[in-house]
Formats: sequence, C-alpha cells, structure tokens
Amino acid sequence: MSISIEKTSEQLVQKAVVACQGIAGSNSETACRTLFAEPDIMFFKSFEAVFSAVEKGLCKYGILPIENSTHGSVTGVYDLMRKHSFGIVKAVKISIAHCLLGVEGTKLSGIKEVLSHEQAIGQCSEFLKNHPDIKVTVCANTAVAARTVAESGRDDLAAICSEQCAEIYGLKTLTKNIQDAQYNCTRFICISAQPVVYDGSDKVSLICSLPHKPNALYGLLATFADYNIDGEKVNLTKIESRPIPGTDFEFVFYIDFETKLSDDKLAMLLGDLEIYTPNLEVLGIYSESSDITE
Amino acid sequence: MSISIEKTSEQLVQKAVVACQGIAGSNSETACRTLFAEPDIMFFKSFEAVFSAVEKGLCKYGILPIENSTHGSVTGVYDLMRKHSFGIVKAVKISIAHCLLGVEGTKLSGIKEVLSHEQAIGQCSEFLKNHPDIKVTVCANTAVAARTVAESGRDDLAAICSEQCAEIYGLKTLTKNIQDAQYNCTRFICISAQPVVYDGSDKVSLICSLPHKPNALYGLLATFADYNIDGEKVNLTKIESRPIPGTDFEFVFYIDFETKLSDDKLAMLLGDLEIYTPNLEVLGIYSESSDITE
Repeated sequence: MSISIEKTSEQLVQKAVVACQGIAGSNSETACRTLFAEPDIMFFKSFEAVFSAVEKGLCKYGILPIENSTHGSVTGVYDLMRKHSFGIVKAVKISIAHCLLGVEGTKLSGIKEVLSHEQAIGQCSEFLKNHPDIKVTVCANTAVAARTVAESGRDDLAAICSEQCAEIYGLKTLTKNIQDAQYNCTRFICISAQPVVYDGSDKVSLICSLPHKPNALYGLLATFADYNIDGEKVNLTKIESRPIPGTDFEFVFYIDFETKLSDDKLAMLLGDLEIYTPNLEVLGIYSESSDITE
Repeated sequence: MSISIEKTSEQLVQKAVVACQGIAGSNSETACRTLFAEPDIMFFKSFEAVFSAVEKGLCKYGILPIENSTHGSVTGVYDLMRKHSFGIVKAVKISIAHCLLGVEGTKLSGIKEVLSHEQAIGQCSEFLKNHPDIKVTVCANTAVAARTVAESGRDDLAAICSEQCAEIYGLKTLTKNIQDAQYNCTRFICISAQPVVYDGSDKVSLICSLPHKPNALYGLLATFADYNIDGEKVNLTKIESRPIPGTDFEFVFYIDFETKLSDDKLAMLLGDLEIYTPNLEVLGIYSESSDITE
C-alpha cells in the first residue's frame, strides 16, 4: 500500500442524515447534536445497523460510542469495525451523567427491577451493589430502558438513563448522578462510507494484527518512536486488543495516536508501520472535540 | 523494590478449600476441578467475594475467569485486581461449549426469554441475533441461569449454560454448541493470599500505570526487547488496558508474558521495568495448564 494523505478544507456536512443507535434521548443523539447543527437523525436498533446504514449509503454519517472513562471500551463496536467498510471522520467526547427514572408515584425504596444498557449498568456498579435486591435487566439502549419503563406503568421498575429522557418519556427523576465516578465521559466516533480527512485532523486510528512472535508489538512501537525524536510528534493514546473468534487467543490490535507530523511524514510513518503489520488498515484521520469544560 | 524470585518444589495443595463464583455447574467449578483433585469448593455470589474470601483467609485458593477467546477479557475481574491483595499461583485454559436448556416440555420455538451471564451472552451473539424476538436477561452466572429456569417451571424460558447443568438442575437440552466460534475457551487464574512461585512457572503477570507521555509504553516494551536478544526468552502474550475511573482516560496496564529467563535474569528484568513504571506490581509468576487437546 502506498499511502497519501489529502486533507479537504470542507467541513462535516451539517444538514446530513446521521445514523444513531437507540431512540430519542440516547447518548448517541447527544453526541450527534454536539457535532451537527441540524442533523436529520435516523435511529437504528443495533450498532451493526448503524455501520450498515452508512456502508450502504442510507445515511451519510453514523455515530458510535467506542470508549467510556469508567467502564472502558465498547467492545461490541470494536468487533464490528473489523467487519465493515467505513472511515472515521470525526470524534467527540461527551460527559455522561446517569439518573434513575420511574413513572409518577415510584419510590426508590419500592424498586424491584432496573433496566439499562450494559455499559450504563457497568458505570453504575457501585449504586447497584448497594441495592443488591434490585434485579438488573439489560436492554439495547438507555433510552429504550426509559421508554419501556414509561410504557409499563409499573411503579417497581426504573431505568438508568440520561435526565433528558425524563421529559421525552414523561418520567420522574428518582435520583441523579448514580455513576461510579463523577468524571464520567464517553468518546464517540463519527463514520462515513468513504474516508475523508478534514483540515485540523490530528488523530489517527489503525487496526492491525501482529504475528504471534516475541517483539512483534515492540517492533511496531519502535517505528512510532523513530518518528518521535523530539518526543512530541507522536503520542500513542490507546491500544486495544480484541480476540479473533475461533482462534487460540490471537488478537487484532486497535491503535490510536495523536500526531503533529506533517502529512508527508505521517504518510511515511504509516508506510513504515506496514513493515511490521502487512495487514495494517487506517480506520481514519480525524480531529476530536469535546463538550467538557475542563 | 528489590525483586528476588524463590521457587518452591511444593505443588498446589490438592485438598484445599477453593472459592468459586456462582453455584454448582458453573464454568469456574469446571476450571477448579481441572486444577484440584479433591477441592472443597465454596461458592460465592460475586467475583469480588472470591477475592475477599482468599484475602481474608476463608479460602486457601480462588478461581477467577479472566479471558475468553471469543468475547475477550473479563473486565470486571481485571478491575478487581487493582483493589485486592493476592498472588496468581496457577492458570488453566478450558474449552467452553454453551447449550440452551429448558424445563421438560419446552420447545425452542416457544422461548420468549433467555437467561445467562453477560460473557456467555456475548459468546452466543450470533445465535441471539438470529432469534431477535427472544428477550435476553443477564444474571450473575450461567449456572444461576439454569437454576432459575428450573425453579420457574416456565416453558417459555431457557438458560445458556454448560451441558452439565442439565443433570444438576433436571433440565432438558434444547440445542448444543450455540457459541459463535466452535473453538471457544476461557482462561482462569488461581489466586492465593500470598504469592507463591511453584516449580515450572514460566508466565508472569504485571500491573502498572504509565505516565501520559509519548513513548512511555515503547520504553517499557524496549526493556523486554533488551532481555530478548535471541528472540525466544520473553514473549509478550497480552496487554490489557483499563481506564482509571474518575480520570480523563488514564489507564492501568496489565501485561502477561511467557519467559524462558533464569530466575536471576527474570528478577533483573522486573527490576529494570520499574525504571519506566515506578508503581509496577507483580501479580504472579505461575504456569498455565489446559484441558484442550490440540
């Protein structure tokens, strides 16, 4: 592969059709509205359907959560990245606060069952551990949890979701900020069918597999170090490994790095990385914004 | 820290009290019986309770799943490793086949809800995707799922669990081998309150955090490469990163490697690694066995 990087001075198309997982009130919607001024949002049931909608051209962009600061990677999305064709064009980090919502008349002490997405359940593990008698049921999305509670009319059922779901689904907030860590945020990627590198892009995501031999990962990282002589040009921000199903713990690696290299130098680095990983694939070169005031 | 490695010619105490998560029929029990000839098994509700039982001396050993070849790391166990004091003394890899069990009279076509542990649910994602109308409910353990189905008497409810649960809980096997990959195995660690290095130990597990600066991980891996001049002495088998809750995506790293170094050289390597990670902790030096015929 000969790699060349061509940046475009265009920006994200603001009035685009954007695919999000879940239903109105989901955190994907919040991420979407942070990136797009006037998105035409199409909701899908699964992460896989979001990838497919973008791949097939039904939606120009798709929004997917990839990592939470408390609970870690959204492994399901990582595993789907291997199976679909797409480019990451933007990322956004948003703060996540979880509330417990129930129908009017619900009391915290009367709750027997809680619904939510497994990531949200993981992010509220301390709260749930302190309420061991509450049954925990996983559902597809935090907003689906809220809608299910609203439709049930039950006063012994509650949803863990964002507070904005209270207004959307006519629910009452029973308690706020039940996530384990008060600093709790999730990174979302924005994908398109074709890779596009917008001006200002300074982050690169790669996927590769490495041979099962000593020093393979070291060889790859040594290449990064070669381009990093003054220690500020390349900063590895994440390595995620996921098993390849059906193999004896063989892995694919997902690598994110921030870079201040020129486009030409970056293209050279990517070319050099291929020496260690013949099946290297660039998932995207993009910038990451944030809704968090630090 | 000055590190010295003292191996003992003793073996795992075969008639020990061993802590397992779940109830009879769990995969932890299978792993336990692979390692111990006559274990006196105490079952606990949560992974955390297994760590506590060993830490407090209630049980001599504890068995914990850490990684599955299809679904990846058991992140909950990784996160608990940071919070408890223990030593890994042995590991074992066992093959896992998932079945769907129901009460007598249950038909596959009549199932409306399935219970299982979230790892098992993840390992059977293709099967569940092909049955989108079946509601999926997470519970603490695959064997708890089987017991719950048995107690319910319902013919529209089924459990994803090991086939041995059929006999233990008087259930019928509706369908076998529903995991996504036919090669599907899970690695378990065996922990004790104090670190012990048995003869034949050739695997090392570390935990550390790295400074948020370029080349930090590279510097650590370069140390491994320094001890690996003939390319066969040290083989990194796993790097797992987990976010530190409450921080802006700061991580702890879990590193596993296989080593053919002498004890003295290994002690020197561990000492050198500390230069890059002042908070390095050795979780254990141990050997890994397997029930899998390759």
